[in-house]
Amino acid sequence: MTQWLYNFGGGAAEGSAAMRDLLGGKGANLAEMAVLGLPVPPGFTVSTELCAAYYEQGKSFPDSLTAEVEAGMQHIESVAGAAFGDAAKPLLVSVRSGSRASMPGMMDTVLNLGLNDATAAGLADNSGDARFAYDSYRRFIQMYGDVVLGVGHHEFEDLLERAKQGLGIQLDTEMSADDWRELIEQYKALVQARLKKPFPQDVNEQLWGAMRAVFDSWMNDRAVTYRRLYDIPESWGTAVNIQAMVFGNMGDDCATGVAFTRNPSSGDNRIYGEYLINAQGEDVVAGIRTPRALVAGGEESNSDAPALETAMPEMFAQLGEISKRLESHYRDMQDIEFTVQKGKLWMLQTRSGKRTAAAALKIATDMVAEGVLDEATAVGRIEPEALEQMLHPRLDPDAARNILARGLPASPGAAAGKVVFSSERAEDLSAKGEAVILVRPETSPEDIHGMHAAKAILTSRGGMTSHAAVVARGMGRPCITGALDVRIDLAAKSFKVGGIAIAEGDVITIDGTRGEILAGEIPTIEPELTGAFATLMGWADKIRALKVRANAETPADAATARKFGAEGIGLCRTEHMFFDAERIVAMREMILADDTEGRRTALAKLLPMQRQDFVELFRIMAGLPVTVRLLDPPLHEFLPHGEAEIRDVAAAAGVKFEEVASRVALLRENNPMLGHRGCRLGISHPEIYEMQARAIFEAAIEVEKSAGGEAVALEIMIPLVMGGKELRILKDLIDDVAAEIAAKHGKSPEYMVGTMIELPRAALRAGDIAETARFFSFGTNDLTQTALGISRDDAASFMDSYVRQGMFAQDPFTSLDQEGVGELIETACLRGRESRADLKLGICGEHGGDPASIHFFQKCGLDYVSCSPYRVPIARLAAAQAKLKQL
Amino acid sequence: MTQWLYNFGGGAAEGSAAMRDLLGGKGANLAEMAVLGLPVPPGFTVSTELCAAYYEQGKSFPDSLTAEVEAGMQHIESVAGAAFGDAAKPLLVSVRSGSRASMPGMMDTVLNLGLNDATAAGLADNSGDARFAYDSYRRFIQMYGDVVLGVGHHEFEDLLERAKQGLGIQLDTEMSADDWRELIEQYKALVQARLKKPFPQDVNEQLWGAMRAVFDSWMNDRAVTYRRLYDIPESWGTAVNIQAMVFGNMGDDCATGVAFTRNPSSGDNRIYGEYLINAQGEDVVAGIRTPRALVAGGEESNSDAPALETAMPEMFAQLGEISKRLESHYRDMQDIEFTVQKGKLWMLQTRSGKRTAAAALKIATDMVAEGVLDEATAVGRIEPEALEQMLHPRLDPDAARNILARGLPASPGAAAGKVVFSSERAEDLSAKGEAVILVRPETSPEDIHGMHAAKAILTSRGGMTSHAAVVARGMGRPCITGALDVRIDLAAKSFKVGGIAIAEGDVITIDGTRGEILAGEIPTIEPELTGAFATLMGWADKIRALKVRANAETPADAATARKFGAEGIGLCRTEHMFFDAERIVAMREMILADDTEGRRTALAKLLPMQRQDFVELFRIMAGLPVTVRLLDPPLHEFLPHGEAEIRDVAAAAGVKFEEVASRVALLRENNPMLGHRGCRLGISHPEIYEMQARAIFEAAIEVEKSAGGEAVALEIMIPLVMGGKELRILKDLIDDVAAEIAAKHGKSPEYMVGTMIELPRAALRAGDIAETARFFSFGTNDLTQTALGISRDDAASFMDSYVRQGMFAQDPFTSLDQEGVGELIETACLRGRESRADLKLGICGEHGGDPASIHFFQKCGLDYVSCSPYRVPIARLAAAQAKLKQL
Repeated sequence: MTQWLYNFGGGAAEGSAAMRDLLGGKGANLAEMAVLGLPVPPGFTVSTELCAAYYEQGKSFPDSLTAEVEAGMQHIESVAGAAFGDAAKPLLVSVRSGSRASMPGMMDTVLNLGLNDATAAGLADNSGDARFAYDSYRRFIQMYGDVVLGVGHHEFEDLLERAKQGLGIQLDTEMSADDWRELIEQYKALVQARLKKPFPQDVNEQLWGAMRAVFDSWMNDRAVTYRRLYDIPESWGTAVNIQAMVFGNMGDDCATGVAFTRNPSSGDNRIYGEYLINAQGEDVVAGIRTPRALVAGGEESNSDAPALETAMPEMFAQLGEISKRLESHYRDMQDIEFTVQKGKLWMLQTRSGKRTAAAALKIATDMVAEGVLDEATAVGRIEPEALEQMLHPRLDPDAARNILARGLPASPGAAAGKVVFSSERAEDLSAKGEAVILVRPETSPEDIHGMHAAKAILTSRGGMTSHAAVVARGMGRPCITGALDVRIDLAAKSFKVGGIAIAEGDVITIDGTRGEILAGEIPTIEPELTGAFATLMGWADKIRALKVRANAETPADAATARKFGAEGIGLCRTEHMFFDAERIVAMREMILADDTEGRRTALAKLLPMQRQDFVELFRIMAGLPVTVRLLDPPLHEFLPHGEAEIRDVAAAAGVKFEEVASRVALLRENNPMLGHRGCRLGISHPEIYEMQARAIFEAAIEVEKSAGGEAVALEIMIPLVMGGKELRILKDLIDDVAAEIAAKHGKSPEYMVGTMIELPRAALRAGDIAETARFFSFGTNDLTQTALGISRDDAASFMDSYVRQGMFAQDPFTSLDQEGVGELIETACLRGRESRADLKLGICGEHGGDPASIHFFQKCGLDYVSCSPYRVPIARLAAAQAKLKQL
Repeated sequence: MTQWLYNFGGGAAEGSAAMRDLLGGKGANLAEMAVLGLPVPPGFTVSTELCAAYYEQGKSFPDSLTAEVEAGMQHIESVAGAAFGDAAKPLLVSVRSGSRASMPGMMDTVLNLGLNDATAAGLADNSGDARFAYDSYRRFIQMYGDVVLGVGHHEFEDLLERAKQGLGIQLDTEMSADDWRELIEQYKALVQARLKKPFPQDVNEQLWGAMRAVFDSWMNDRAVTYRRLYDIPESWGTAVNIQAMVFGNMGDDCATGVAFTRNPSSGDNRIYGEYLINAQGEDVVAGIRTPRALVAGGEESNSDAPALETAMPEMFAQLGEISKRLESHYRDMQDIEFTVQKGKLWMLQTRSGKRTAAAALKIATDMVAEGVLDEATAVGRIEPEALEQMLHPRLDPDAARNILARGLPASPGAAAGKVVFSSERAEDLSAKGEAVILVRPETSPEDIHGMHAAKAILTSRGGMTSHAAVVARGMGRPCITGALDVRIDLAAKSFKVGGIAIAEGDVITIDGTRGEILAGEIPTIEPELTGAFATLMGWADKIRALKVRANAETPADAATARKFGAEGIGLCRTEHMFFDAERIVAMREMILADDTEGRRTALAKLLPMQRQDFVELFRIMAGLPVTVRLLDPPLHEFLPHGEAEIRDVAAAAGVKFEEVASRVALLRENNPMLGHRGCRLGISHPEIYEMQARAIFEAAIEVEKSAGGEAVALEIMIPLVMGGKELRILKDLIDDVAAEIAAKHGKSPEYMVGTMIELPRAALRAGDIAETARFFSFGTNDLTQTALGISRDDAASFMDSYVRQGMFAQDPFTSLDQEGVGELIETACLRGRESRADLKLGICGEHGGDPASIHFFQKCGLDYVSCSPYRVPIARLAAAQAKLKQL
């Protein structure tokens, strides 16, 4: 027969910390503390298996449970030396939920259970504190009435409020024992009126009612939503912990508090926390009274009341000892709850403490220094995503926030500045030294210069991987996208949000980490990469197998990437170089040309500019690999939009308005993502790729020839191939240019030609493609778009509900869809390497910086990942953890 | 040692018809005829293997060839009783190409080889016809000079023209022997002047030069282009046939002609062809003289000169006998070339004769009746695509054609009518009984009614599978798309093509079969489905395993589909039902609604209309399966475009212009193909699918309840799923509606729920999906778009060059990309059936009507294909052939 109950307390326990799945986090750690001999009030845990059984059997308990609960209560009674329902020596218990994953506040709790008219009187006698006893009783009726019986919490509060008004008092503490007793009668009458039956006096009825309520709360709306948000399976269920009550509110020799074994904010190795004299646990968090610090002079409290160290030195010493013991036992910083009842210290909870990234790094490296952890374990302890907050400026957490609206947290960090509505305006103001925030319905490649000029970007449309989001992350600019409530009126140069209008020049602050748009300027804090950061990243680098490169094309981005430890460039997008004001003129001339000759003339103007870009980039990346992707986007992205722009271009080019307009119309596409772009341009307009290859080779030779010039390892990448044939044609073209350059310069440029794998067909045809390609780089953005048939620019309208309804665990543009896109990648790796054993494999989509995806790439055996410069440290750490996991 | 030469003639041959790959079509059939004992001038075939060796060795011949050619020439000499280069009894030979696949006129030929000054004189003596001998010699110099020596053909023609002018004569026949002799001297001088060396008098030099020229012509531009067009591999190479000349131009007891063993136009079992007395073969095709019919009273000649039957009854009898012999030997209608030299009949070529679809059907069924073929062989003989011309009206082939421009032949058939530029105008005029041609830059779903009203559609943009093309094929309307030269000015209601302007109301003719836009009205011929058609289709139906359904949603289309033998509807697109003028108002109201309630109100108006559509459809399809696809396209397709339309809608709906405009803007998508559509609508707006399910079930029950009502087998299809979860959610929704209907009507509707597989991820996740789906229908249009990353609406700008450069053998939207998309289909079939053994598999993309694709679907083990009603017979035949091929 299944064992449903697990006792703990009295220096022993049937469970342990290892039994977290069965007993929930709280129950497992209570058992562990009991085994360690720590002072834990006796109790038992009803297992998560019972929760499953309860729901399977239509919310009813198995018959065998009754006897087990009776035995469990006897265990508590014997250890506590009190009897449940006994008026002489009443035992009170708490009934709390406790699931495998922490779900703070989502489920129900009942305290002080076991009180009725008789035991309350007994408690009054026993404790010698009638006021305490009746306060406890009325709290119990209120809590049980709300949680178990379904009588509204506010109805009880109303009665209490009216009672206080009648007595002319303000605070609960002013209520006397008799006042409480009178209120208790009113409470009981309220229950009778609502339920047509009295408040249960039978303590066993109370116990079963509370257990049932806690199990039921597993399926309440809050819990269901929370699980969906945090991807917690419903099947896990919750455990229920029934434990003897201890009281921190029985007088001035009583107290209650929470402690972290180290400082969770800085990581300093010093106990940290707060407590209250003569209070119940909920009072510490409720904020009615100001808690006091544990340590004298501790920054954790602004109260000047004495610290626990001073007020209860004996208790503080015991707590310190237990704290050390727990930390060395769990080998991690702990978050502890304790209560002092009449001079005796009781431990109510311990768990791993949440901490800031800075604290996490300090604690991990300190623990290695202390010999508690080895380096690998320390590396495994840091949540890679948490590093994000260290790499960007962030808002002062203490500053007041006036939130105008929320959007998607598309690129982290924070910045304040004047609102502008065009990239031109952004450049103008920024050239004058103004901080500006670029606000657009959405951005296009033409906005690159404006985005660069801006401190942050806000778009009302688009998702986490829209153009704005991708580019902003690459540039390290804070960005919010999909802020649907922001109604932009470009003509009026203003936006409305709620009832408020924000005009050009008004100052707002963008918190890209949280996705919050704030009124006015909020002060920010600059990032500091501490010694612990460097130490831990060094350990990670020693462990990981995957190389980490960055997606970068500007000198600034490349420099950032090297600073963050990038080992090369995995994606240099050459089209970003063409949106510059001067260049776009030549680019448009090229596109508007009628024939190959016209295009060649325009391309000849672009050649020296593009060459110079590469020269700068190659100097910065000296000695490292640089993957240059040839022109990818459809040509119409470079063309003017709207009549006015078309007129300008026509005038500048000296052609008729109609001619430009009709060319623009001709190039327009219904689904540009699936249109005439990528290598399709290289096939139809070979002169473009020729020019680009020439610029790359000439730049490489120039850098090598210059004094002390160190070459980069050059990788030329062809985008959007569907099979081997396109690549063969374009590799021949590039080889021809190289031969020509070699003939002219007497020096043959070293290079590899490879391709993006970003279409499902390319993944399937990888064997054929690898006959020509020396490397593959998975373009997981486009591969996700095509494999799933989702345009990332248009996904905002349904992706949320898709994630919510479980179609994906996470947005597949953020974290790789391993079941679908992942299979294509695995297939391509296999077939590619079958055909060419030394094929180099990498990935340059957004997923290159996502830890879960990096774990997958490690499994696939990729050689490197490439991501935004600002995500390079995250990728380095995630790659190390992926390697550790594999070992 | 490889044998390079294969002799034939004198009642024997080293080759046979089975050696087509090695000897080419001409050589193999010459050998076969020689073995049959037919009168074939002796000769030998140099094999295609030599062609390969020739190119492999840098265009040089293997050493061993010389001796073989010498032996071959001796063989010819001995059979012909003449000697090569011998002035007394000169042997003349022809040197002709002959590859595995017919490539008419693409490669070079040299006739009368072996003539020089000496042998020409000998030939004059021998034949007793000096004029004939010198005419032959000058023809040889001209041909050899052009083909082998590279002296321009026109240069010789100029000399001839000048000679005739000098002599004051018009016709070549007026030239005397001496005139020719004089011209020969001028020809030789021309060669000497151009080549700085004399015309070769050495007959062996002539022979090797001609052989080399024929092999070289395998790689000439014409041949390369032709091979690309007809997908003939370069590696096949050509053979060369060297054969003793026979002359049809040695007097009035000589003749030359071509014959078909049956009428290639009607299929009538009667020899058919034309001939010329005293002429060389090239004269019959050259059109200088009007050929005569073989049979007296034959329609094949408009000459009233006597038929061969009358003029040379003995020769005619021999020819008739040989014709019967060849046909029964080859078991197919033959296309024959013959020459009569001085009363002796010689056979120069036989091959399977090209024929019209009508003839093909008649010949095949007649041959079965004659016991020559069995039914399966007859079925295998018909080119499925050829049926197309029988199913649509076609232009009178004898009418004059003034071609304005060409576009893509998007939907076959022909129609004439007045040009209109809007669907509204098309409806108006058509309601008045006018035939109209709808001319648009491109069409959208809102044009459905206009396309229905029009006789034909012309679009200047879009490809073979653009909206216009797909819909037009479904409706059986002739359609031309991608007519890039047609410059439409919608505002001016006119289009320009070349220098010509066509205004609204002007009449044009559309030949959708050829993709030609013609001025004025060209008379058309209505299709007739003869008895042979029905007979052969009956045999095909007995053989095939694949069921054939149609894609249809209107009663007219469904009726057409049944007429053409469809066994159900494989795709009923419910959205086409919403574009009707009355319905689109409610549809727009639904889309513009702020909340679910508003949408439900609008949907309630649509319900009865949609139900009525289904009632009609189900009545027509009684007893057959009908697959109904729930709403698929993005909602904004239903919304108004442009300010004026938005104003109308706002006024009709009683809301503000700005509100409608902003809603339209909000719904706009960058890549609608990859946007918020398909089941994504069903997930986000479940009330839409609920309404549709209700309409379907209620219609089914209504039809069953009505007198004599026979139910359809109902299949409800969910579009665009990515995995199993979406389908589970939506199947639950449909099941709930069914349960509700059952409760209300006391009758449970029978139905299956299944899904489209049209995204790569869905193909990969087929196992999971099949846990819920009872059937899969491959949406190969979208699957091709996503697997290849190509928007079919935008592919026109590069697809041509992609096919030309060999990225695809054919446009992958026309014929399935088996290597890429095909693998996804195979994977999905395998995983789907692993998970559900009785999973029904079908395909409803455009490829369902493409024979090559149907062969692939047969291999995959699909249960059915579904295609446009007009392609149903093609699919039935192709399915039978696919089955035969598999056996």
